[in-house]
Amino acid sequence: PGKMKGRKARWSVRPSDMSNKTFNPIRAIVDNMKVKPNPNKTMIALSIGELGTLDRGAVVIPLIPILTGWLEKMGVEGYLSSREEIASYYHHPEAPLEAKDVILTSGCSQAIELCLAVLANPGQNILVPRPGFALYRTLAESMGIEVKCYNLLPEKSWEIDLKQVESLVDEKTACLIVNNPSNPCGSVFSKSHLQKILAVAARQCVPIIADEIYGDMVFSDSKFEPLATLSSNVPILSCGGLAKRWLVPGWRLGWILIHDRRDIFGNEIRDGLVKLSQRILGPCTIVQGALKNILRRTPQEFYHNTLSLLKSNADLCYGALAAIPGLRPVRPSGAMYLMVGIEMEHFPEFENDVEFTERLVAEQSVHCLPGTCFEYLNFFRVVITVPKVMMLEACSRIQEFCEQHYHCAEGSQEECDK
Amino acid sequence: PGKMKGRKARWSVRPSDMSNKTFNPIRAIVDNMKVKPNPNKTMIALSIGELGTLDRGAVVIPLIPILTGWLEKMGVEGYLSSREEIASYYHHPEAPLEAKDVILTSGCSQAIELCLAVLANPGQNILVPRPGFALYRTLAESMGIEVKCYNLLPEKSWEIDLKQVESLVDEKTACLIVNNPSNPCGSVFSKSHLQKILAVAARQCVPIIADEIYGDMVFSDSKFEPLATLSSNVPILSCGGLAKRWLVPGWRLGWILIHDRRDIFGNEIRDGLVKLSQRILGPCTIVQGALKNILRRTPQEFYHNTLSLLKSNADLCYGALAAIPGLRPVRPSGAMYLMVGIEMEHFPEFENDVEFTERLVAEQSVHCLPGTCFEYLNFFRVVITVPKVMMLEACSRIQEFCEQHYHCAEGSQEECDK
Ligand SMILES: Cc1ncc(COP(=O)(O)O)c(C=O)c1O
Ligand SMILES: Cc1ncc(COP(=O)(O)O)c(C=O)c1O
Repeated sequence: PGKMKGRKARWSVRPSDMSNKTFNPIRAIVDNMKVKPNPNKTMIALSIGELGTLDRGAVVIPLIPILTGWLEKMGVEGYLSSREEIASYYHHPEAPLEAKDVILTSGCSQAIELCLAVLANPGQNILVPRPGFALYRTLAESMGIEVKCYNLLPEKSWEIDLKQVESLVDEKTACLIVNNPSNPCGSVFSKSHLQKILAVAARQCVPIIADEIYGDMVFSDSKFEPLATLSSNVPILSCGGLAKRWLVPGWRLGWILIHDRRDIFGNEIRDGLVKLSQRILGPCTIVQGALKNILRRTPQEFYHNTLSLLKSNADLCYGALAAIPGLRPVRPSGAMYLMVGIEMEHFPEFENDVEFTERLVAEQSVHCLPGTCFEYLNFFRVVITVPKVMMLEACSRIQEFCEQHYHCAEGSQEECDK
Repeated sequence: PGKMKGRKARWSVRPSDMSNKTFNPIRAIVDNMKVKPNPNKTMIALSIGELGTLDRGAVVIPLIPILTGWLEKMGVEGYLSSREEIASYYHHPEAPLEAKDVILTSGCSQAIELCLAVLANPGQNILVPRPGFALYRTLAESMGIEVKCYNLLPEKSWEIDLKQVESLVDEKTACLIVNNPSNPCGSVFSKSHLQKILAVAARQCVPIIADEIYGDMVFSDSKFEPLATLSSNVPILSCGGLAKRWLVPGWRLGWILIHDRRDIFGNEIRDGLVKLSQRILGPCTIVQGALKNILRRTPQEFYHNTLSLLKSNADLCYGALAAIPGLRPVRPSGAMYLMVGIEMEHFPEFENDVEFTERLVAEQSVHCLPGTCFEYLNFFRVVITVPKVMMLEACSRIQEFCEQHYHCAEGSQEECDK
């Protein structure tokens, strides 16, 4: 009755373009994998759930009295003091920080989301590493931002192909994402390589999002250099969080550190980040209450134990896989991963890395993520956070698998002699 | 050198349209208020920070042993069992729920964000209440979604003007937001009014986002009816969380309950919500670990104590303000607020509600949010969660303030005799 023009004739509720554009390759590949593990072998997951077996007692146990004391007088405040704690923890003479330079987020994922949201409009583009963490593309595409990939070079310990970066920048480039240390590569950039990256950004006038969630998770023979400490003129948003170094990904506390000594971001980007972070309030106050204790009182042995397990697994896994004909692992220097090249010409039974890793589950009950999850074909990623015995067992199963499927490639007789 | 065409000539980093479109009226008004409180009166905030003095010991203290036990064996799992807990807690014969119908979010704010993100494209519109919670507009506009307001009618205990709703629906209407119990009104809709709302939605084929964060927070003379229990054919996304009823807003645990018995949302909207919720993982696992205990073991006295304080403050505040010439409070039935009309013709010194509330701070050190924060002029909102003595003191200060500024309006002599 009455005015009917606007009325809809029947139900039709369709998901938005944003939700249709939201695509997570890890979910798509892992959730669509229909393969069953070999029932005669216990399952070894080197794919996701990476922190399963690392010991986080040192973070968690000493927390309890502080946490409970804090719970009792718990309030909603704490946002400012948390930002002060993070600012003073990451303050560096070359890259000073105050509370106003810190934005608290729900994990490093939200930190990256807010950085993209403030820097890029739909239709602009961002430069991301390949192989790289899939979330960059997932977030950007759901926001209508185009993704251009630059290559990491395995033969140069996964350094960035900087010529290519320079050729990819155009008028619509909103930012360059640099992930160091790297997921999935486990690589750590040298100071001089970082300086070259900064020189490109400075020349091209492109701001950087530095995903440094694995910051300080480097083996003793490498050094982690926070990107912002090496430049006074490139504006940098550094993203981090408690998830990796403190092994508590479920606690969802992350941050953005705003480095802008030349005032290129200026108040506008800063205010933009603040406004965006207030749409959905950030991290849980319980974790904020524990933050000071986590940052100040975590014993050195905790970091040391984590890194020495990772380093010894990295060596062990690299050594074992390097000896397997058909595989070409790249030695990692940090984080919790190792990438392994598959010489596909020697495994003609398998169409690609996805099939290779599926068959590895079916036959050997060892699960690794195919390089396709990181947009890098003919590789797979190994998570090295499992206990040593399991790492060894996994490597010997991978060896058995490769031996069973290895074929000499035509015209490369020498290879087969090894 | 080399290919230079794409290169930017100099730095120019501008915030995105999204960040420019992100506007939070409460922040804008509160943060821009330059007024100083009266130094001779202690400050009483009836504006925000609403849970300051309610006793949440009953939620927090019994948690501690469970929480710490759980911390020790803490994992990243828990997402499924949390969804099961919420599904069984809110399950109703008329509106059944399983774990797959529950999406976990970072507070009710993110629940609303994801609902908008899955239902609406930029350029579409949504219908929101006026007066209403400012976040609906803040989120929608930051996403390029148009907001159309429908009125709540103070003379009908803030029922919805349903004729107006019907006239506002057009081809581009993505959803109707219904907030019950209401912030800022403290109103609770009757069953028959809710049925009429559902009839409009059914006739117009518009899905509903039911913001039920204050669900069950109603005084003994009213009853809260979850919207989805009253309809089997209108698809409803019900948003809730721990923030209000359990008084822990900082814990950031919220949820979406998907009610879709006629399969109108179908798998597409469901999958869309799942995908969107995986972009940035949801609530902190510590709080998830405590969820079962919170839902199952919170003693009835806890809810009872909260509600009886709210009810007695509501009566007291309503009674006191109703007796003040120039003010027209509307009696609340739930939530933690009360709206008060200002007969501006009797306060000619003040241009509007913003000035009225600013002067109230300057002279009486009582802070209330102006109706403008809720897009409703010539009203102010009182938060009723303060201790009784403070509530009384605030009312008598408001009385003093009004007496000092009340003027007889021209041509309404009778009014002034009261
Ligand atoms: C490179 C990288 N960045 C960001 C994240 C997201 O971290 P969070 O779990 O804190 O959201 C991850 C998590 O795996 C990661 O590997
Ligand atoms: C009506 C309404 N909806 C949603 C919210 C947001 O709740 P949360 O703090 O869980 O994000 C609030 C908070 O004040 C509210 O009043």
